[in-house]
Amino acid sequence: MKAIVLLSGGMDSVTAFHHALNEHEVVAALSFDYGSKHNAREIPFAQLHANNAGVRHETIELGFMDRHFQSDLLHSGGEIPDGHYAEANMKRTVVPFRNGIMLAIACGFAESVEAQGLVIAAHSGDHAIYPDCREPFMAGMATAMREGTYARIELLRPFIDLDKTAIARRGAELGIDFSTTWSCYKGGDIHCGTCGTCVERREAFLLAGVPDPTRYLVTPPLPSAPES
Amino acid sequence: MKAIVLLSGGMDSVTAFHHALNEHEVVAALSFDYGSKHNAREIPFAQLHANNAGVRHETIELGFMDRHFQSDLLHSGGEIPDGHYAEANMKRTVVPFRNGIMLAIACGFAESVEAQGLVIAAHSGDHAIYPDCREPFMAGMATAMREGTYARIELLRPFIDLDKTAIARRGAELGIDFSTTWSCYKGGDIHCGTCGTCVERREAFLLAGVPDPTRYLVTPPLPSAPES
Repeated sequence: MKAIVLLSGGMDSVTAFHHALNEHEVVAALSFDYGSKHNAREIPFAQLHANNAGVRHETIELGFMDRHFQSDLLHSGGEIPDGHYAEANMKRTVVPFRNGIMLAIACGFAESVEAQGLVIAAHSGDHAIYPDCREPFMAGMATAMREGTYARIELLRPFIDLDKTAIARRGAELGIDFSTTWSCYKGGDIHCGTCGTCVERREAFLLAGVPDPTRYLVTPPLPSAPES
Repeated sequence: MKAIVLLSGGMDSVTAFHHALNEHEVVAALSFDYGSKHNAREIPFAQLHANNAGVRHETIELGFMDRHFQSDLLHSGGEIPDGHYAEANMKRTVVPFRNGIMLAIACGFAESVEAQGLVIAAHSGDHAIYPDCREPFMAGMATAMREGTYARIELLRPFIDLDKTAIARRGAELGIDFSTTWSCYKGGDIHCGTCGTCVERREAFLLAGVPDPTRYLVTPPLPSAPES
C-alpha cells in the first residue's frame, strides 16, 4: 500500500524505513523537530536515508513542545540522566504524549498525500517507562486514525513483537550502515555511551552479535536492567 | 478535576469553556493557529474569554498544516464553498485529522501542567462530513490519551449528546455574549452569512429561539439540510 514512515534517524526507525521500502510504496518520510537536545544530530541521518532512497523527506517543526512541555529530553529541561534505559530515573526524559502527537500529525499528512498506511518503529522493548509506546495506547491511536480519516488510515507496527536486539539483526540483514543513525539523547558531537539510549544501543548490538560501528565518548561496562 | 479546554473562539468552544468553569478547575485554554482563513478572527475571541476568566491562554502555532495539508479551509486552499454545513461540498473544508492533532497536542500540554482532563466541545451535529468528530474516533482518542499518559488523562465531551441548537441555548443560559465568538470560515471583516458554518450558526440561533447578535454581510433564506 501507499505508506509514509516516521523516520527520526535513530536505529529503529531507519531499520523500519528500509523494511518498509521492501513492503510498501513509501511516499514520504517524516521527522519532527520538537526541541530535543538530539534532534539536530538525528534528523540529518533521517534525511540522508530518505534522499538515498529517493523518498520525499519533510521535517515538521514543533517549537511549542520545547516552550510548553516538561521533559529533560528538551533544551528547556534539565540534564540527561545516565543509567539503564528501563530505570525509573529515565522518566525525566519522557516527552508527554510525544508519540500521540507525532502519529496524529503524520496521520493528517498521510491523508493529504493519499497514503493508506503509516509506519512506526515501536517495538516490544520500548514499553518499560513510556506509556505512549505500549500496545493499549497504540490500539487506541490505531482506532482513532482509522475512524478519523476518509482513507481509514492504518497504523502499521512491523516491529511490535521484536525487541531492539532483533531490530539490530534485522537492520544488519538489510545492509544498513548503522554509523549513519543517531541515538544519544545528549546530542553531543559523538554518542556519550552512558545515557539510557546509548546503553540500550550498545546492549542491542552486543546481544545481537552485530558489530557496533558507533563512536562513543566512553564505554564503561554496561549497567544491568532493573529488576522488573 | 484540573482540566484544560480546547478554545477556538467559536460559539461551541466558548460555551464549553464557560460550562467547564462551573464544573472543573480550568488551568489553561488552548487555541491552535493552523493557517485557516478564520484563525485570525476567532483566536482573539478565545483570548478575550480566557483573559476575562483569569485563565491562562496559549496559542499553539501549527504552520506545517498550511504548508503540507490539503483543505480549502486553509490559506493554501481554494475558495470556501457556500451552502448547508452538512452538504457533501463542505468536505473540501475538512482539514485531515485536525481534531486528532489538536487533541494529541492538548493531551501532552495537559500532562505538562498536571491536569487530569481535557474538554472538547464536540457535539452530535458535528458528524455529518467530519470523520474526526464522530464517536468511534473520539473513543479511540480517549483510549490513546488515557493509556498514553501517566496521569491517565480523560477526554471530556460535555456536549456530545447535544446539537448546536442546544449549545446556543446553554450558552444563553450561561450569559455568554455571542457577539464575541466567531464562526465564518471565510474570515472576512464580518461573518459572510452564506458559508456552511455561517448557515449552521444562523440556523442554531433561529431554532434555539436565542437572539442572534452576529453582523452578517448577507442573510438570504437558510438552505435546507440535505436528505440524510
